[in-house]
Amino acid sequence: MIGICQFGAGRIGQIHAANAAASGRAELKYVVDVNADAAAELAGKYQASTASIEEALRDPDIKAVIIASSTDTHADLIEASARAGKAIFCEKPIDLSLARVEQAIEVIEDTGVTTLIGFNRRFDPTMGSVCRAARSGAVGDLETVIITSRDPSPPPVSYVKVSGGLFRDMMIHDLDLAHWILGEVPVEVYAKGSCLIDPNIGAAGDIDTAAVTLTSASGVLVHITNNRRAAYGYDQRLEVFGSKGMVKADNRSSTAVTTITEHGVISDKPLHFFLERYEDAYKAEMAHFLDCIEGKAKPMATMQDGRVALILADAAQQSVETGLPVKISQ
Amino acid sequence: MIGICQFGAGRIGQIHAANAAASGRAELKYVVDVNADAAAELAGKYQASTASIEEALRDPDIKAVIIASSTDTHADLIEASARAGKAIFCEKPIDLSLARVEQAIEVIEDTGVTTLIGFNRRFDPTMGSVCRAARSGAVGDLETVIITSRDPSPPPVSYVKVSGGLFRDMMIHDLDLAHWILGEVPVEVYAKGSCLIDPNIGAAGDIDTAAVTLTSASGVLVHITNNRRAAYGYDQRLEVFGSKGMVKADNRSSTAVTTITEHGVISDKPLHFFLERYEDAYKAEMAHFLDCIEGKAKPMATMQDGRVALILADAAQQSVETGLPVKISQ
Amino acid sequence: MIGICQFGAGRIGQIHAANAAASGRAELKYVVDVNADAAAELAGKYQASTASIEEALRDPDIKAVIIASSTDTHADLIEASARAGKAIFCEKPIDLSLARVEQAIEVIEDTGVTTLIGFNRRFDPTMGSVCRAARSGAVGDLETVIITSRDPSPPPVSYVKVSGGLFRDMMIHDLDLAHWILGEVPVEVYAKGSCLIDPNIGAAGDIDTAAVTLTSASGVLVHITNNRRAAYGYDQRLEVFGSKGMVKADNRSSTAVTTITEHGVISDKPLHFFLERYEDAYKAEMAHFLDCIEGKAKPMATMQDGRVALILADAAQQSVETGLPVKISQ
Amino acid sequence: MIGICQFGAGRIGQIHAANAAASGRAELKYVVDVNADAAAELAGKYQASTASIEEALRDPDIKAVIIASSTDTHADLIEASARAGKAIFCEKPIDLSLARVEQAIEVIEDTGVTTLIGFNRRFDPTMGSVCRAARSGAVGDLETVIITSRDPSPPPVSYVKVSGGLFRDMMIHDLDLAHWILGEVPVEVYAKGSCLIDPNIGAAGDIDTAAVTLTSASGVLVHITNNRRAAYGYDQRLEVFGSKGMVKADNRSSTAVTTITEHGVISDKPLHFFLERYEDAYKAEMAHFLDCIEGKAKPMATMQDGRVALILADAAQQSVETGLPVKISQ
Repeated sequence: MIGICQFGAGRIGQIHAANAAASGRAELKYVVDVNADAAAELAGKYQASTASIEEALRDPDIKAVIIASSTDTHADLIEASARAGKAIFCEKPIDLSLARVEQAIEVIEDTGVTTLIGFNRRFDPTMGSVCRAARSGAVGDLETVIITSRDPSPPPVSYVKVSGGLFRDMMIHDLDLAHWILGEVPVEVYAKGSCLIDPNIGAAGDIDTAAVTLTSASGVLVHITNNRRAAYGYDQRLEVFGSKGMVKADNRSSTAVTTITEHGVISDKPLHFFLERYEDAYKAEMAHFLDCIEGKAKPMATMQDGRVALILADAAQQSVETGLPVKISQ
Repeated sequence: MIGICQFGAGRIGQIHAANAAASGRAELKYVVDVNADAAAELAGKYQASTASIEEALRDPDIKAVIIASSTDTHADLIEASARAGKAIFCEKPIDLSLARVEQAIEVIEDTGVTTLIGFNRRFDPTMGSVCRAARSGAVGDLETVIITSRDPSPPPVSYVKVSGGLFRDMMIHDLDLAHWILGEVPVEVYAKGSCLIDPNIGAAGDIDTAAVTLTSASGVLVHITNNRRAAYGYDQRLEVFGSKGMVKADNRSSTAVTTITEHGVISDKPLHFFLERYEDAYKAEMAHFLDCIEGKAKPMATMQDGRVALILADAAQQSVETGLPVKISQ
Repeated sequence: MIGICQFGAGRIGQIHAANAAASGRAELKYVVDVNADAAAELAGKYQASTASIEEALRDPDIKAVIIASSTDTHADLIEASARAGKAIFCEKPIDLSLARVEQAIEVIEDTGVTTLIGFNRRFDPTMGSVCRAARSGAVGDLETVIITSRDPSPPPVSYVKVSGGLFRDMMIHDLDLAHWILGEVPVEVYAKGSCLIDPNIGAAGDIDTAAVTLTSASGVLVHITNNRRAAYGYDQRLEVFGSKGMVKADNRSSTAVTTITEHGVISDKPLHFFLERYEDAYKAEMAHFLDCIEGKAKPMATMQDGRVALILADAAQQSVETGLPVKISQ
Repeated sequence: MIGICQFGAGRIGQIHAANAAASGRAELKYVVDVNADAAAELAGKYQASTASIEEALRDPDIKAVIIASSTDTHADLIEASARAGKAIFCEKPIDLSLARVEQAIEVIEDTGVTTLIGFNRRFDPTMGSVCRAARSGAVGDLETVIITSRDPSPPPVSYVKVSGGLFRDMMIHDLDLAHWILGEVPVEVYAKGSCLIDPNIGAAGDIDTAAVTLTSASGVLVHITNNRRAAYGYDQRLEVFGSKGMVKADNRSSTAVTTITEHGVISDKPLHFFLERYEDAYKAEMAHFLDCIEGKAKPMATMQDGRVALILADAAQQSVETGLPVKISQ
């Protein structure tokens, strides 16, 4: 059993804790959260204890940490955990500052600990298999990629203000998918953003509607659109087109029921929220983290992947601000 | 926490035990199985003990039993558990003999214990919502029902010999669905059966391909077909047609991936096996059983439903044997 | 140019005339109809003349006739046309009396003229290719066939009274499809019928809802359901299941538009009426008739096929009346 | 009967001539083509004559012209026909030079003749109804539009050289759709182009893969991708997303057949070519032109629409060449 300390007892932390506990391979020993009640409640569910960061990292039985606390704590926790020799699973993003991300990566590389970043799409049976098919040549040489991502409803403005903006907070998943599919870092980013859904988001200096073009060195063209609200729920689609055809990921719904009446052929809306849509992905992600710790697999989503996604998000933000395409130089 | 004793530690027993344990509302205290190793292994997974039937039923902390042992033990276990005042969840079928089923029901009615029968389709989000929609008038007055059920591959002949035959073992689920949708017991059954898949099944006196017509008192017509093998996996479909339209259940697949090449538009096969297809149904079924015990719900699938399905299966068997339609009189 | 005389200037006659004219291979010379105005109008559209049956059949330039008049005239027209040496395209059914059909076939066989019967499903790109795939072994050895046919709305009772009943008028298409797919005449027919839609249909001695089971000599089982009304339009589906999988025909709609809102995923209803649904089939049917006349093809739907379908329809009618399965002996 | 002169007897000319002839409202009197044989053959099919441009336009019985000749003749024919007072249906594009287009429009406006430009998507039942739904508010306020257009195979390089390039030749349809959906001229165009399919296209100075972003004054974002080859045929899709949901156009296929085997669920590829895909659109387009001539409708696709589409195509071309977004000022 792999001893685990979990940082963060919120919504996504509860999911990771449950998946680790249900794996039969890990034992949740500590839950650390600034909210003592939340920490105690989650710990109680799995016969774990609450602890301070220092206590938890000092315990030699702890082999791994799950970082699911607020974004501004990620980099510090990564560094402290790496220095304590723990394997690290960290929710995206590593940090909103590229410089800070690069510092943390330096510490990781110095200590050589195993790390995994929580880009959930990579672990989703549907999204992941489209990407793997594309990478394996199933559609020949790549030509065009189209990614569509829409949230069911916009986040509260208080969250928008600390989120780093739509590109770093929401589109970062799509930018990572594009990077994974291409197998290389795009060389140019062009982005347009609008505030069409909630004027308060605009007042907070952010956008809620975005359209991005990525270009690879070889000329593969990627289109990504994001919307912060969709009347019908969570919309997560992807298509990869190449010389031999197309492979695509459609939405999933909760049932396979169709009703046909004089009004038309009516079937279920997409699954409404990311917690339902990526339920299987979260399980696979945790299983993969444990596999990596046990030496059975190599991390499918690295801190370098997190860094690249942030570079692309920063470039998109700069493009929106300047109105010009932005070259990427690594 | 509801103290539970589980009878049967096989494939389906493991699923029920896991769902009871994960519910947070029940504590698995005993596992009883003639295979001592299987019982010990399952018990160990949930900090439960192995026990004899008598020991388990004698324990006043046991409020409920899950009967997932071999079919020929169901009726005895139902009676003993009912006499011990335990709530009973019993896998289908109650018994292969209608007389024996009716005896067991008498004991249940005398003791007044809560009972639920494991007709998993009723708890499936897709199948269940089609049936509820049909019952609620969503498609108007019912006219025609079409049920298709195909297994991925035939069972071993050794199983066929003790299964009671295709109608009592496999189609019983579809007969129950028809009964539920109609809201009344059909008045006539006509059945045809062939052995087209495995001649050994024919040699064992059974069929592997069947087509049944049920007629309700009001003239609603139901068609059910069963096949013991489908090259593409598990096929579970249902359509209910009425004066205002149709509602139907299609198959579910493991991903929403589509590949389009010069060879066509290709998407995933249906989920391959009943354990995957009805995974959600098994969870909902156990949650419902616990709700019934806690007085929050009334059983959605009763022993009387089990009895009706067996009556219909017996009639189908008789129709195949005589070549004539069979009238049902309750 | 093949000189053609058309009998019948009604709805379906207009379609056949238009398709013959547009073929570029046939010249419509005469239109014959008891309704002189209708005959004149249709003739005028294609620079044809009206004529009596005798005049038309006497003209040596007439190589072929299209019989699209009322059912009770078909057999007489077939015999007269055959004796005049004309190739014959006849709308189904040949006649409602099997004896009369067999008389007409005798005349056809004596004269050796080319004949084709208008079983439109056989010429439909969707239905036809499912049947050909099934016949060619695409799904292995056949096991189960399921045919669903629903009209958008019931015919007027005046029509019902002269139609020969649901089996001879409506299901005859499905019985023919089953016969074609099986490649042999079924050995047994069992039918149930109800009047659930229009009590006037029941008062006229007919049914509006039917469920039929056909059994082949080798044990292939066929289920057919018919409904005289569907709230959502014309419903024409077919699935053929065998040892290697399934091939099926779904409905077609007029657009590929999907709307997704908070209310669900909504797409178009099926094409509403047989004239739209089988528009392509009617064109292909006429082209095939001309091919047969020109010796480029052998008739894909023969008068013998028409006879078999009527035998099956008669048996279904008898089964409904007696409540018993009916053996077919050819 | 509306007397018609057709310019151009090639592939698309033959379609327009056939649709005009089949309308029952128009009489094709002249076919004009530099290829005398082609002109004679097409004329012969409809009892029309061949003629010179001057002869045809001089005939007072000619009320309308169909311009389906090579692109470089369009503007001259438009002007000559307008001056002769004929109603004009012109295939897209009007001309490859914006200045020339504007000259021709001036003549049209001076003469006041009825004109229609052949943007076939606007008349397609699927594409057209998505656009109309979007315009009518069916999905609320517009936020994002995604258009995908892929040809089955690239044109010959000889054609590419005179085509005006991908944006003016191929994407012009999609630019027009975007303009129609938005109901306003976009204010900015950004385009990327690659040559990934045929290096000869690149050598000829053109691209075969393109990705364009349009931005409207209100911030609606439009993504268009084009590919000059798709292994699976012609790919024509469109989705319009707004505050109340999404409406989209999917591809159409020639049958509704699905085959399910151990290899997956396999259905038909999209219709392979624009002549099949837009067959209904061409019929509707011609009917609409005749309606406009008869005063029953106002042109749904005007020469101004043709001008706007060319402005957008020019801007896209400029954006690819400069690497910068291009502002549109009308």
